[in-house]
Amino acid sequence: MRVLVAGADGYIGFCLCMHLANNGFDVVGVDNFSRRRWVAEVGSHSATPIRSMPERLMAFERAFGKKIDFEYGDLRDYGFVHYVLGKYRPEAIVHLGEQSSAPYSMMDVDHAVFTQTNNIVGTLNLLHAVRAIVPDCHLVKMGSMGEYGMPNIDIPEGFFEIEYMGRRDTLPFPKHAFTDWYHWSKVHDSGNIMLACEIWNLKATDIMQGVVYGTRTVDTLNDSLLTRFDFDAVFGTVLNRFSAQAVLGQKLSIYGTGRQRRPLISLKDAIQCFSLVIENPPDKGQYSVFNQFDEIYSVAELAEKVKKVGEKLGLSPEVECIENPRSEEENVGYYNPVHEKLYKLGFKPEHTLEEELETMLTDLTKHKPRLNEKKDKILPKVWWNPR
Amino acid sequence: MRVLVAGADGYIGFCLCMHLANNGFDVVGVDNFSRRRWVAEVGSHSATPIRSMPERLMAFERAFGKKIDFEYGDLRDYGFVHYVLGKYRPEAIVHLGEQSSAPYSMMDVDHAVFTQTNNIVGTLNLLHAVRAIVPDCHLVKMGSMGEYGMPNIDIPEGFFEIEYMGRRDTLPFPKHAFTDWYHWSKVHDSGNIMLACEIWNLKATDIMQGVVYGTRTVDTLNDSLLTRFDFDAVFGTVLNRFSAQAVLGQKLSIYGTGRQRRPLISLKDAIQCFSLVIENPPDKGQYSVFNQFDEIYSVAELAEKVKKVGEKLGLSPEVECIENPRSEEENVGYYNPVHEKLYKLGFKPEHTLEEELETMLTDLTKHKPRLNEKKDKILPKVWWNPR
Repeated sequence: MRVLVAGADGYIGFCLCMHLANNGFDVVGVDNFSRRRWVAEVGSHSATPIRSMPERLMAFERAFGKKIDFEYGDLRDYGFVHYVLGKYRPEAIVHLGEQSSAPYSMMDVDHAVFTQTNNIVGTLNLLHAVRAIVPDCHLVKMGSMGEYGMPNIDIPEGFFEIEYMGRRDTLPFPKHAFTDWYHWSKVHDSGNIMLACEIWNLKATDIMQGVVYGTRTVDTLNDSLLTRFDFDAVFGTVLNRFSAQAVLGQKLSIYGTGRQRRPLISLKDAIQCFSLVIENPPDKGQYSVFNQFDEIYSVAELAEKVKKVGEKLGLSPEVECIENPRSEEENVGYYNPVHEKLYKLGFKPEHTLEEELETMLTDLTKHKPRLNEKKDKILPKVWWNPR
Repeated sequence: MRVLVAGADGYIGFCLCMHLANNGFDVVGVDNFSRRRWVAEVGSHSATPIRSMPERLMAFERAFGKKIDFEYGDLRDYGFVHYVLGKYRPEAIVHLGEQSSAPYSMMDVDHAVFTQTNNIVGTLNLLHAVRAIVPDCHLVKMGSMGEYGMPNIDIPEGFFEIEYMGRRDTLPFPKHAFTDWYHWSKVHDSGNIMLACEIWNLKATDIMQGVVYGTRTVDTLNDSLLTRFDFDAVFGTVLNRFSAQAVLGQKLSIYGTGRQRRPLISLKDAIQCFSLVIENPPDKGQYSVFNQFDEIYSVAELAEKVKKVGEKLGLSPEVECIENPRSEEENVGYYNPVHEKLYKLGFKPEHTLEEELETMLTDLTKHKPRLNEKKDKILPKVWWNPR
């Protein structure tokens, strides 16, 4: 089975390419390396010294004796998307090729417009090209748990049956996303993908994914196969930032009270989930939604976890609350997203959060000089509401 | 009170500018005349011989002794949006400046991408400029009743309180829009506007409007003040198309069974509603939603109305069902959108559908040569699912 991975140079994308190639799939990666440029634009770099794509692919072939194909291109260019789908005729496409940072989208009007147009146009182009060339192809799209926001009712996987004013219907769960243009771009994508399934009989799985953390997967055999690891305030996710701060001896900076709760999944488990989803496509015309996360913690609990594991490894991280740069509700009384579909397909989380943190802190300690070079990039500088 | 009308050269926009200027508002119109180009692109023209903007504005001043300001520009250009808001500092902005045709968005990938990016970027630019320059300004945005689709439960005005799995919350009503990229661009806009109100404390009213019909308002004193009237398959709305067919002696072409139900409002009443909304802004931080329509008819019922009024005027329209070019559910069992807020503000529909149709058919008969020139543009050529 041939799988195309868009965003193959990214944090999850490169690990997914290796995993699929090592598990019997023909893999073609696509990327325009824009994530590397965006991180450079905000003055930072990956903690891990990632290699160029040609070097990565050669290192992978040397390590495993398998080849991953690659095509350079921008998903906003329909000519490219049409060409690459025609050349490879994939049976599944995993679309990870979007701008994925909330703070980046909040920097100014240009970054807001860029984030929404980049993400929406890439997805629209993929949908049109799939319809034109490979209408039976399964589109697996990276969405976000943040699309749902924090409702005071249970969050189903995409759709729910409700009674209202004495009548019943099954409808898409209302999207009231987190408070930034990036999360809303994912909501817009979800609507567009649902539409394409309805009118063109395509099949798609929309992955509402939690926050990802981790430095490696089983395929990360040597330093040439490292995946990127962002720890700056713009591109670093919460646990990755805390881990970098622990290694640097900085205080773990909690935004606001830290009572915000977040669904999480490790990099290894996210890869396992994508694999399960690819192996279990929906029927033609079906738009399927998975809530892809393992556990839920508050931000303050995550900081405590990093502190605990850090101390075990001889670090002495302290925790501090700083002013929250985001406009967000911190004191959410109830948060209960359902996540059953992946477990029904056989998903088994491989490691506990603490085990995984131990690996992360150990890995990051090796790259401490690179963390140190950008140590002033970890505290937030993008404010949702600058005064 | 100063009002900026984006899309001032359009069907509703020009009438709204005249109405506001004649009712004590300082009005500045903005447009880039793209609607004229899009209609030319699909090979058609307005049934009414509309004048250029400079001619229209001079004719208005001659007729009423009042001046409407105008600025040429594209809402996708943030520099322009920022400039024009700074120059006029409006207290309200009515944003009608979007690509508003479902079939146009379904022509091909380029038109899909254009429709969504044009509409989303214009609205994002307006939101950012309002925040930067006139944060107390009331944004009145043209959305569509089609954003809700056809749920089997009552459709509230934007938000509803629901019980689900034993818990309650007030959430945005789920958007499951009509089956085209245009209607989904309106859904995307709605999400973005709600977000801006939440994080930046802006105030906005999102108008979920029904299908508009009509040829004139009370301000249409002479031919130099005519508003455009599209009757082609791409830009003509259903009643406007039927009226043109009746005048031309063509069969009124119903898509499919004609059982599709549509909320409607006359051009005159839409103008009255916009006026009420402008005079009744929400509080800061509030995102308010109005369902703006008067009556609901099935497409087949509309054809029968046009037939009846046409016969009264000596025409002899016949009705036929043609293959539906759209992928849409025609046999909807239940459709009950609430529309109470406008009536609470004092909205009184001025004319019955049949009175209005009589005016339309009489007006269009004067322009029969222009209808005749483009008589081959009324039957649909854009298919949702080309075979």
